[in-house]
Amino acid sequence: MNDETTTDTLDLTRRFAGFDRLDEPRVVIDEAVLEDNIAAMATLANDAGVELRPHAKTHKSIVIARLQKAYGATGFTVARPYEAKMLIEAGLGPVTIAYPLISPQTIATLLSLAKDGSDLRFIADSDETVTALADGARLAGRKVHVMLKVDVGLHRCGVDPAGDMGVRLATRVAGDPQLAFGGLLSHAGHAYGAGSPDGIRAVAAQELEMMTSLRRRIEGQGIEVPCVSIGSTPSIICHAGFDGVTEIRPGNYAFYDLTAVRLGLVSRNQLALGVAARIVAVNDRYAIANIGSKTLSSDLGAHGTSATTSYGEAWLPEMRAPLSVAKLSEEHAFLTYGDNRPPIGTPVLILPNHSCPVANLSGGLLLLEKDGKGSREMRVEGFVGNFR
Amino acid sequence: MNDETTTDTLDLTRRFAGFDRLDEPRVVIDEAVLEDNIAAMATLANDAGVELRPHAKTHKSIVIARLQKAYGATGFTVARPYEAKMLIEAGLGPVTIAYPLISPQTIATLLSLAKDGSDLRFIADSDETVTALADGARLAGRKVHVMLKVDVGLHRCGVDPAGDMGVRLATRVAGDPQLAFGGLLSHAGHAYGAGSPDGIRAVAAQELEMMTSLRRRIEGQGIEVPCVSIGSTPSIICHAGFDGVTEIRPGNYAFYDLTAVRLGLVSRNQLALGVAARIVAVNDRYAIANIGSKTLSSDLGAHGTSATTSYGEAWLPEMRAPLSVAKLSEEHAFLTYGDNRPPIGTPVLILPNHSCPVANLSGGLLLLEKDGKGSREMRVEGFVGNFR
Repeated sequence: MNDETTTDTLDLTRRFAGFDRLDEPRVVIDEAVLEDNIAAMATLANDAGVELRPHAKTHKSIVIARLQKAYGATGFTVARPYEAKMLIEAGLGPVTIAYPLISPQTIATLLSLAKDGSDLRFIADSDETVTALADGARLAGRKVHVMLKVDVGLHRCGVDPAGDMGVRLATRVAGDPQLAFGGLLSHAGHAYGAGSPDGIRAVAAQELEMMTSLRRRIEGQGIEVPCVSIGSTPSIICHAGFDGVTEIRPGNYAFYDLTAVRLGLVSRNQLALGVAARIVAVNDRYAIANIGSKTLSSDLGAHGTSATTSYGEAWLPEMRAPLSVAKLSEEHAFLTYGDNRPPIGTPVLILPNHSCPVANLSGGLLLLEKDGKGSREMRVEGFVGNFR
Repeated sequence: MNDETTTDTLDLTRRFAGFDRLDEPRVVIDEAVLEDNIAAMATLANDAGVELRPHAKTHKSIVIARLQKAYGATGFTVARPYEAKMLIEAGLGPVTIAYPLISPQTIATLLSLAKDGSDLRFIADSDETVTALADGARLAGRKVHVMLKVDVGLHRCGVDPAGDMGVRLATRVAGDPQLAFGGLLSHAGHAYGAGSPDGIRAVAAQELEMMTSLRRRIEGQGIEVPCVSIGSTPSIICHAGFDGVTEIRPGNYAFYDLTAVRLGLVSRNQLALGVAARIVAVNDRYAIANIGSKTLSSDLGAHGTSATTSYGEAWLPEMRAPLSVAKLSEEHAFLTYGDNRPPIGTPVLILPNHSCPVANLSGGLLLLEKDGKGSREMRVEGFVGNFR
């Protein structure tokens, strides 16, 4: 963790080398920072004695997933069926689809892609989702690995850990010969709204308590709970220990973003993803950069949080403070420049509020290599799309 | 225009037929509404005696562009170089890149794709952009068609119509043997913030006055102004006449969206784009649909306008009022359901605030055909991407 998180300066002499040579706007990745971030999380998982199964929704890149695996990831997590398909087809299973699927046909199609029953893990949080998984298992003639999704405070999906539903669904899954009970899974996404490392740590402590309590109640029914899996980058960085946890599923940590800086998790020089653009017009009020909401997204934070009214920071070479991205059209960023009117043509490196949708919108990430001389494409074609 | 724009009800017995049969979420287009919207704008252009060159950024679909051409469009408008490339390669020129380009290399590459000098039109609003176009023309050995971008109130790109820059740049372009002066181009995007048809009409009247005044000053220098091109769907629907205008460039009208409904331009049953999803979880407060900001975007309106705090409306079959999309995660929509708790598995048709980023995020549009029985893919692969 960094003490100067809100006042630190992005050092463009050491970061995103070569971004200013691009003719057209691109979403760029600093290779050295990416590797540092991936290595640091792998060390954290190793020290904690937990498996690391990163959420691939952040990068949607086979190249980055392979890098995470090289650093010790033992599997991956996704939200969408087509994301699972891409990873399975690249041989990067086991994949956990941490999302309630309700189409038996989708479940069966996914199972037919997996090499065996342990290659895919699904979640359930209602009778309807358990039924869909059982129907999908029968359609595919495969046994299905089911984890129970637990709502630890985001109030999105998941069973109430204090209610009866969790034990009842675990019992139902454990008793169905088509299904295998895989354990508990949570995502403390509300940590993004907790504001500070201490606030996040309190969320993480509550999560641990809820998961432990539910695990014991399920074990009390004679049901083995082989895995307790927790997610969210902030609640893992600002953790409250890993007692009873067997697996972590952070996603955002590969890149981080200004939301992570605002939460006090990292400094700006630990951000691996930026958007390389140029000033193409300057009027009395705004400098206009050639990138808008169709690349930066309109996100002010994660999960609809908004600790800011700015859409990002635009860093110019040799400036100590960024211009604020005050407004976005689809392909234009409105930068407030105060007394520092930049010339047309000036390259800018924009740090976004939320890196996950930016990677998703990029149409292909550009890796700026460590030696500062080269760059290469990272996205595997087809990783953004629809499941068929 | 429709009188019941804020109280009307989406009629799912007549619209988006088949959306409830999809296994997985998709961005869907109602074919009949799409054709009606395209036909109505073609009629408006024809009645006004102006050329129609739609902005393809809304749909990014060769199929829809061809439909617009079949209804009388005489060319297309884009924002990004790769959008121009896709249309030119599909034989859908002339294409106007209504965006200030500053890379001579990009300009030269685009020129090399065009079949002749009239196939591509560029804009300029500064000495730097005129220089880039002249350099690109020299690199490609082609003459370049340049329109002067005029700022009619959005304060983004464009010359001040009351200042000296417009006449000076027109004179410079007209005097450069590498360049051909193509006329004036404006985009009254601030019409989206005007709130009502009358407010929009006032914006359109100002735009007309500014463009006419600048045209006369340029003509006063002995320079011919062959084209006066105006844009923005709202300012064309709520126009103030087309005196002196030769061309319109609306984009959003192909689909419209809730922003257009809120502005009083259309009714909900005139919206051609929706997102088909399902309820996958229900908690005490929210029903969760399986689509989030990675498909709906986080836009509350166009150009950063926000007349709402909701991310869209989720319509359920047989309900007279929609559920509000109160919050978004990347792949989840939080719907407030009040006393009407919907069952898990219920199909929902979500109307977005802003259709342009949704089409951009779709990874391929699904056309729901007019007979209500079939559907087909519309997006040409590669229309979202990077220029190389």
